[in-house]
Amino acid sequence: MPTRRQCANAIRALTIDAIEKSGSGHPGAPLGMADMAEALWRHGFKHNPANPFWPDRDRFVLSNGHASMLHYAVLHLTGYDLPLEEIRRFRQWGSKTPGHPERGLPPGVEMTTGPLGQGISSAVGMALAERMLAAQFNTPEYRIVDHHTYAFCGDGCLMEGVSHEACSLAGTWGLGKLIVLYDSNGISIDGKIDPWFSEDVGARFTAYRWQVIGPIDGHDSEALDKALAEARADESRPSLIICRTHIGFGSPKEDSASSHGAPLGESASDATRRALDWHEPPFSIPQDIYAAWDARAAGQAAEAAWDAMFAAYRQARPEQAAEFLRRMAGSLPPDWAQIARGMIRDAADKGEDLATRVASQKALEHLVSRLPEMIGGAADLSGSVGTLTSKSEHLRPGAYTGNYISYGVREFGMSTIMNGLALHGGFLPYAGTFMAFSDQAKNAVRLAAIMGLRVVWAFTHDSIGVGEDGPTHQPVEQAPTLRLTPNLNLWRPCDSVETAVAWQCALESHDTPTCLSLSRQKLPFFERDAEQIAAIARGGYVLRDCQGAPEIILLATGSEVALAVAAAERLMAEGRRARVVSMPCAEVFDAQDPAWKESVLPAAVRSRLALEAAAADYWRKYVGLDGDVLGLDRFGASAPGKDMFRQYGFTPEHVLEKARALLK
Amino acid sequence: MPTRRQCANAIRALTIDAIEKSGSGHPGAPLGMADMAEALWRHGFKHNPANPFWPDRDRFVLSNGHASMLHYAVLHLTGYDLPLEEIRRFRQWGSKTPGHPERGLPPGVEMTTGPLGQGISSAVGMALAERMLAAQFNTPEYRIVDHHTYAFCGDGCLMEGVSHEACSLAGTWGLGKLIVLYDSNGISIDGKIDPWFSEDVGARFTAYRWQVIGPIDGHDSEALDKALAEARADESRPSLIICRTHIGFGSPKEDSASSHGAPLGESASDATRRALDWHEPPFSIPQDIYAAWDARAAGQAAEAAWDAMFAAYRQARPEQAAEFLRRMAGSLPPDWAQIARGMIRDAADKGEDLATRVASQKALEHLVSRLPEMIGGAADLSGSVGTLTSKSEHLRPGAYTGNYISYGVREFGMSTIMNGLALHGGFLPYAGTFMAFSDQAKNAVRLAAIMGLRVVWAFTHDSIGVGEDGPTHQPVEQAPTLRLTPNLNLWRPCDSVETAVAWQCALESHDTPTCLSLSRQKLPFFERDAEQIAAIARGGYVLRDCQGAPEIILLATGSEVALAVAAAERLMAEGRRARVVSMPCAEVFDAQDPAWKESVLPAAVRSRLALEAAAADYWRKYVGLDGDVLGLDRFGASAPGKDMFRQYGFTPEHVLEKARALLK
Repeated sequence: MPTRRQCANAIRALTIDAIEKSGSGHPGAPLGMADMAEALWRHGFKHNPANPFWPDRDRFVLSNGHASMLHYAVLHLTGYDLPLEEIRRFRQWGSKTPGHPERGLPPGVEMTTGPLGQGISSAVGMALAERMLAAQFNTPEYRIVDHHTYAFCGDGCLMEGVSHEACSLAGTWGLGKLIVLYDSNGISIDGKIDPWFSEDVGARFTAYRWQVIGPIDGHDSEALDKALAEARADESRPSLIICRTHIGFGSPKEDSASSHGAPLGESASDATRRALDWHEPPFSIPQDIYAAWDARAAGQAAEAAWDAMFAAYRQARPEQAAEFLRRMAGSLPPDWAQIARGMIRDAADKGEDLATRVASQKALEHLVSRLPEMIGGAADLSGSVGTLTSKSEHLRPGAYTGNYISYGVREFGMSTIMNGLALHGGFLPYAGTFMAFSDQAKNAVRLAAIMGLRVVWAFTHDSIGVGEDGPTHQPVEQAPTLRLTPNLNLWRPCDSVETAVAWQCALESHDTPTCLSLSRQKLPFFERDAEQIAAIARGGYVLRDCQGAPEIILLATGSEVALAVAAAERLMAEGRRARVVSMPCAEVFDAQDPAWKESVLPAAVRSRLALEAAAADYWRKYVGLDGDVLGLDRFGASAPGKDMFRQYGFTPEHVLEKARALLK
Repeated sequence: MPTRRQCANAIRALTIDAIEKSGSGHPGAPLGMADMAEALWRHGFKHNPANPFWPDRDRFVLSNGHASMLHYAVLHLTGYDLPLEEIRRFRQWGSKTPGHPERGLPPGVEMTTGPLGQGISSAVGMALAERMLAAQFNTPEYRIVDHHTYAFCGDGCLMEGVSHEACSLAGTWGLGKLIVLYDSNGISIDGKIDPWFSEDVGARFTAYRWQVIGPIDGHDSEALDKALAEARADESRPSLIICRTHIGFGSPKEDSASSHGAPLGESASDATRRALDWHEPPFSIPQDIYAAWDARAAGQAAEAAWDAMFAAYRQARPEQAAEFLRRMAGSLPPDWAQIARGMIRDAADKGEDLATRVASQKALEHLVSRLPEMIGGAADLSGSVGTLTSKSEHLRPGAYTGNYISYGVREFGMSTIMNGLALHGGFLPYAGTFMAFSDQAKNAVRLAAIMGLRVVWAFTHDSIGVGEDGPTHQPVEQAPTLRLTPNLNLWRPCDSVETAVAWQCALESHDTPTCLSLSRQKLPFFERDAEQIAAIARGGYVLRDCQGAPEIILLATGSEVALAVAAAERLMAEGRRARVVSMPCAEVFDAQDPAWKESVLPAAVRSRLALEAAAADYWRKYVGLDGDVLGLDRFGASAPGKDMFRQYGFTPEHVLEKARALLK
């Protein structure tokens, strides 16, 4: 029977071998955290390597994602479908072992990490999802949701501001089943951290209402066991276990930043193997160590026990069980088509002039009560962003009832937590803030796009229409930024019907996050026939057309569609053939078949004018060198919105002037 | 002689009047913080209303910028050039009293605030600037730099992650002259904050190594005096004074979120005036209260005393005095032209193939020792981003010597601190991180652009060329995002000479921040004649040309320029007339005269192919509907960079294919 240190050294050996072979990687952290990983994964971590999707598995997030080889080694050793072949192909094109963990690429990786701080922050969302699902589905007899969320993190994660935002909330929420092991090695890339990270992390987390355990020796397996037991014992507070470790443990570069981000090199690798008393050839693990790590039988038994409990639960509560499975699968309710139709029909029938943030709220009134998976919220702007509905009930920490979260002024933390809720499964998170502050959330939105999560951001106050709050609150470059982010849809609807369709499309986008760009100010309602309503979901369509082939196309989104329509009417009155194209979602439009695109924007019509109160250049892709854009290539100002639209040329007169110039 | 409360009530009255008149605004915070403002501004705040640019004035930052009327009232009452007329025009087009404070718009506003948390974070930068300037210029006899930095902040600021990043650093740096008054009123927009902000803020700041004073009663003037005295007495730690206040103090909406962001309304306004025992008509301040607030005489005397000291200093150390004035004016050194020329000539003469991050470091080797105002740094990536030079010396807290800061893994906090260093004056901050993480810094970069600050970000690892670190570390949409941000220049140089010119232009852009987009991987050097070298500064120019009018233009930036040149050479060999345009800074190119633009991109040439390993759509503005773009509309992957460029079609063959299609 190998010792625990020998088991941990198997991680170290695989780490060294994989990084040497690939010629790049981060050995320091895996060497340092191997004993922590052994203590967690071989002693009480609930999982079944054969089924990484078992709903009640413990969740694990490697927040310091550069330590990816630690995770890959553990997955390999415990029996996941990650053969040695893949470890050998670490960081190579097409391998399952990328430089930083990517969700689902190696089976067992719950989340893509790499940008520091976001891992622990999304772990907060996962732990919240667990508590809320438990509150919704468990019964006194059957605790079908009852697992921990573990995260490893390093100094860098705790320097990042997002760790503050999310961990402060975790403490407030009392997430007792969240356990973070902090790899406190005192080293970051620039060296010994004292000159830039001298805070008392333990005191900080105590201030957040966490249980703080340690500092303990992160290489002492028994101390780790004891700390983990203490952490699990406190069900009312999240726990931070401060593990003092040595980066690059066992290597000649131990305790040095030089072990962080480059292969050790052959001679240091050899020295490390000797120091660790490890005498196997590269990529070779003795059978007894494999056996000691193998979690397959225990995992199968654990899941089988859960399956049996779930079968009994299903018998006792068939509807609830079916609903649980639906929720975990991320499927929409069986009557979804009806719900969506009702939501859109309601907007069309009422025909109200509404700010699209209000139209969005009305759409949510349809959705929230019918989709219990929807978990809403806002970054301390609930009254402004329309995410709070009459069916919303605030989260109650402790009880974990509710479907709405006041996240406080924490756009980034909110967004990472939304990602965590989606990653856990069972929830469809949406939340809002002002669009200008999408900046702060951006890297979490990007990570949702990389991971392919169904998360919806309602970004309101989406232009200079914000008015008096001024340039810091008025987005300019944000819409194009989000449009240019891969695998992300930005919807900028022009009225209540387009807003309802945007919500429909957002919820049906299973693997693509959505940002809604919504107006602060009231916008007019547009009449449409059934065909036009159906066309909205194609991202771009003809809203108003002329008789015969158009001479000019006015292309607009959101609040500027009304301006395009007004200008087109004037052009028509002058005997010109003008078409108005509404383009609420350019990404979806771009994905349509060529025939649709040609029918909306005929290649032959080169007189094209795009209108959007945002950075203009994005629209050149549709208007080309022969067209024109009425956009905004400067920051806004503090003044009533109407004054500002006038000052910046968003008037029918100015549009006409530009249109006539194109028609010359 | 009016009481202190009466003096504070003058702020409250002006706040109510201005917000009622404008019909929008945030009365809650000014009403709550008026006593704090009275205590600070009437008792020990060092300033001269007649000269908001006095170098040794105390700095004040209103981090909770929605309380703008508080600041405007104080500026008006103490005698700044902000007449009642402007207060009456609060939040109107063209007024000096915008919804959130904007730097320099009302004289005396040091910084634009509004996005919560950034104010206190930039205040950290200002306080650091003070200490570093003092270390560089003070003598035992003459303390020409010796002032405090004060900030007011609210709960929202302290929820934001950036407050964690910057305040942790402030404690580590021991910035004893930084004093933050925390308006702890227990209310944010969503209501009573306990369900989302229950952390022990005092304990948190103690963990950061701050002096924490209070909680005190923020409406008790003597308690405020005592707290401020304690704060000023501790010169080795920044101080946080926790002031418990009542939002909307005196109004019927006191202690309610409803006082936060909307006018009180006529009846509540009247009730407030009665409750405050304030019986003046709107916009009317009794003369004795004006007299009690008037800081002009004292301010003039204070500055005159400083002037006398500075005159003596100048006599004793004429060169140092001149240098101090140059630094504070933000002028480049007298021999700047020579320095820049030397830097560029050196790159051209050496003609090395370099990663542009390395070329940037070589440019900095020229600059750092010759421009003592340059203060460098990195977000824990000093070895990777090329910001650390042989002339760089690390900041030494306490002594405050050095010209280089390891900011830790804090992209946002770093950037807000850079803004603060620039705002204080005397420094030209530059720092680096990976370009993918420009996301985290984005809103600070935007704020620098809004404020017009000369700050330089070196964003390296600027494409899939990052390689093995994978998609989280590979920018795609970041370059267009930064280009589309108003008043911000993004330079993406293709070799060592363009990199040197980019640095020259960045330093000469007095009112526009710059982002450098730099490669991880080595790029070839391009020969240029003197005219071409001069043309780089125009943002876009012809790098390689054909005989006669071009049939096709290949337009590229950074690492893709070499690909364009290779493809153009092949096209020429096939007898085609191909031109290569290098476009290191599209924003600067767009600002050139039409003749220059026509000479580079003749309107008649419609076969245009743009190449950039980033989101493609941005380039449509130059290639139009008839051209093509070789870009990247998906996330990257983890693999060696060369493999990825090949996989994603960045090969001469693929470029040729696209070019030939355009030439058909």
